[in-house]
Formats: sequence, C-alpha cells, structure tokens
Amino acid sequence: MRTLYHWPLDPGSRQARLALAEKKLKFKLEPVSLWAPGEDFLAICPEGLPPALMEPLSTGKVMITSARAICEFAQDQSPARHPIMPEKPAEKAEARRICQWFDSKFTGEVNGYILTERLEKIISGGGAPDPAVLRAGRENLGFHLQYIAWLLEDRDWLAGKTFSLADICAGSHISCLDYLGEIKWDSAPAVKAWYQKLKSRPAFQPLLKDRIPGLMPPRHYADLDF
Amino acid sequence: MRTLYHWPLDPGSRQARLALAEKKLKFKLEPVSLWAPGEDFLAICPEGLPPALMEPLSTGKVMITSARAICEFAQDQSPARHPIMPEKPAEKAEARRICQWFDSKFTGEVNGYILTERLEKIISGGGAPDPAVLRAGRENLGFHLQYIAWLLEDRDWLAGKTFSLADICAGSHISCLDYLGEIKWDSAPAVKAWYQKLKSRPAFQPLLKDRIPGLMPPRHYADLDF
Repeated sequence: MRTLYHWPLDPGSRQARLALAEKKLKFKLEPVSLWAPGEDFLAICPEGLPPALMEPLSTGKVMITSARAICEFAQDQSPARHPIMPEKPAEKAEARRICQWFDSKFTGEVNGYILTERLEKIISGGGAPDPAVLRAGRENLGFHLQYIAWLLEDRDWLAGKTFSLADICAGSHISCLDYLGEIKWDSAPAVKAWYQKLKSRPAFQPLLKDRIPGLMPPRHYADLDF
Repeated sequence: MRTLYHWPLDPGSRQARLALAEKKLKFKLEPVSLWAPGEDFLAICPEGLPPALMEPLSTGKVMITSARAICEFAQDQSPARHPIMPEKPAEKAEARRICQWFDSKFTGEVNGYILTERLEKIISGGGAPDPAVLRAGRENLGFHLQYIAWLLEDRDWLAGKTFSLADICAGSHISCLDYLGEIKWDSAPAVKAWYQKLKSRPAFQPLLKDRIPGLMPPRHYADLDF
C-alpha cells in the first residue's frame, strides 16, 4: 500500500491527496509536521518537506516528493483512467500554467503572508501574527479572487472545459484559507460556485474532515451548501 | 515560427529558452519587461508575465505561458528526440521535484531576496538594495549550494544519471545570480563542476551573451573555463 506523508493544512499536501483520490489510487495517510519533521521522516525524505509519497513500484519502493511531482506521477500512472490533465497540448499547458501560478505567485503574494502568519507562527511558537503582513496578504487575496473569477467567465473549470490539476491546485490553496475563515465568499460569487462544485467531489470529502487541535474552522468550511 | 517572449535575467524565461534550445525547436526571441509589460504583450498575455510562447499549432496559434508549462510542452512535442526528461517514472518525479524546489523554495529563500533587491529595485526605480535583505538571501544561497553539492555526490546530473529539466531549472536560477557575481565558485567546487558542464552545452551559449545595459556581468560569467 502506498503511504502519503502530509500536513493537513499544507496546500501542497492537499494537492497530493486530491490527485491520488481523483485517480482512485489507494493510499494511507501519515501526518508529519511542516516545521519540525521527525527523525523517521527525515530518514526517508532528507528535505523533510511534505508531501512525500512512498510508492511501491515493481522495482522497489521509491519516495516521490513535492506536490507537482506527485500530481504528475498520479496522472502518468493511468493517463486515460479518471484523467486530471486535459488531452490537448495547449489545454495541458494551461493547466500547468495555473498550477505554477498558484504554487509560486499565489503562494508568494497570499499564502506566504496569511498561512505563515496564522499557522506557522502559532504552531511553531513564533509569536502573534503581524497585522500589517496579514493586511497585505488579504489585499493580495482580493486581487487573486478577482483573477480566478475572470478566468471562470468563459470556462467551466479553471483550465477550460474539463476538471484538471489546475482545479486541484487552486482548490488546495483556497481550501486552506477557507479553513481559517479568510475567504469572503459573498464578495466572490463566481469563485464560490466553482468551489462548491469542487467541494462536492468525492475526493474532496476527507479534506473537509481535517481538524487542527486548537484551531477549529468556521462552520461553513465543511458545509457543501455554504 | 514560434516566438518566445522573455526577460533575459528572469530565471523562468531562461528555463524556457534552454528547454526549447535543448529540444532543438526553433524560436525567435522577443524581449518584454518583467515590471512594465507593454500593451502589445498584455493583449496576448493578460497576466503580463514572461516567459510566454506563441506557438503555431496546426489548429491555430496558441499562447503557452509559465516556465513549467513551456518546458513540459517542449518535452511533450517529441518525447524521444533530445529528451529533457528521464524515462522512468521515479526519475521523472525526481526531476519535477527539483524544478519545484528551485521555482518555489530557492526563489522564496534566495532569488526573491537577491534578484528583487539587485534587479527589480534598480530597474523599476525602487531605490537602493536593502543590505539586510541581501545578507539574508546570500546566507540562504550558501545553504542551497551545499544542498546542490550533496545531491551531486552520487549523481552525474541533478536528478540522476541523465541531463534533465532539473538541470535546466537549477541552472537558470544559478546563472542569473552568476550574472550578478553572487556565486562564490571557489567555495562550491562540486556545483562549479556541474555548472561548467551545463555552461558548455550549445543550448546555453546564447544566455552567456545576454547583457543588461548599465549592469555588466563579471568577466567569468561568459567564460567556459572559469
């Protein structure tokens, strides 16, 4: 059985969970800390960063790490079965562009501020969140939600007509912020409609049950009709 | 003919140039500003961010943007011809992991500090570099060079036995820092040996001729035997 080492509110870990679940690849979950990985985890993953997938290949067990590598690996295992990547080259490129947008730009401008201040500081004991940093992250989040709404004006899913890794990636980032009550859904109706569709997918259900001790999500977090 | 819109010292743009050149796909280069994209570029790329590839497909022209999408697209065009991705799933995953490492972690910890301070501030008129920020980026760079050296202890190239997108990605980031004289090569002999091999590849030669007006590279930048 494959094992996915993850931290529940890490957007990269959520991408790996969603990709494996969408592909209907069975896995068991093993939680690891984002800030203080244990010796056991460091022994199999020297970088100490989830997500990390222990995959039993026919040639032996291998460790596959990073969200992008795990997601593409999951798709490559059985490209035609429950695809999470469009078939046409240009649409495939658009899905990958959006993944990089969220992993680099959205992370740098939004999650790097909000998740670092609200999670890392609290959990690793780094002190109280800095209101100025939070404000900057929230302002950037507003621009990014407008950008997602603009993409959705003539698309069913983020990269085009079909559900793809772009939705998995964006949804993972957004869902971590939603757990913290950071998304003002009333001001982003198009994004809300897309996120509702995403949230209703069977692969998404386990994420809605995540709970970090001492940090409960708002009631709407797990509500499919929020 | 395909056109690649790029900015010479943007690590993402360099990845796209190297990937297309390694795959021997012909393209012409069109420079765009990272900080003030013109109206013409915004009309074809609303995000305004290089790299962006105008690709004449049989179904019409398409715009492919972001380093990851362009690099994977280049490889997908002719997987077996001049491959830039290993064949085995686990090695492929390792190449993608290293790409994400450089695009997210290295960018966040090194280039986000050094390139922002030394390029963006000067070119966009944002004032003098902040010495404390530069110092933090340089300290992080030291740790990352140690990490690259550790990877190379039992590998010919960054992801394993064969040259891959991992080398293209890491080399693009490192080469921008080298243009600014930020790499202390004498303290990183294993990384230097790898970068010398990379620098000698035909695809790399055009990057060594890049010159930003008012910001000349150190003499060793273009020297193959530095």
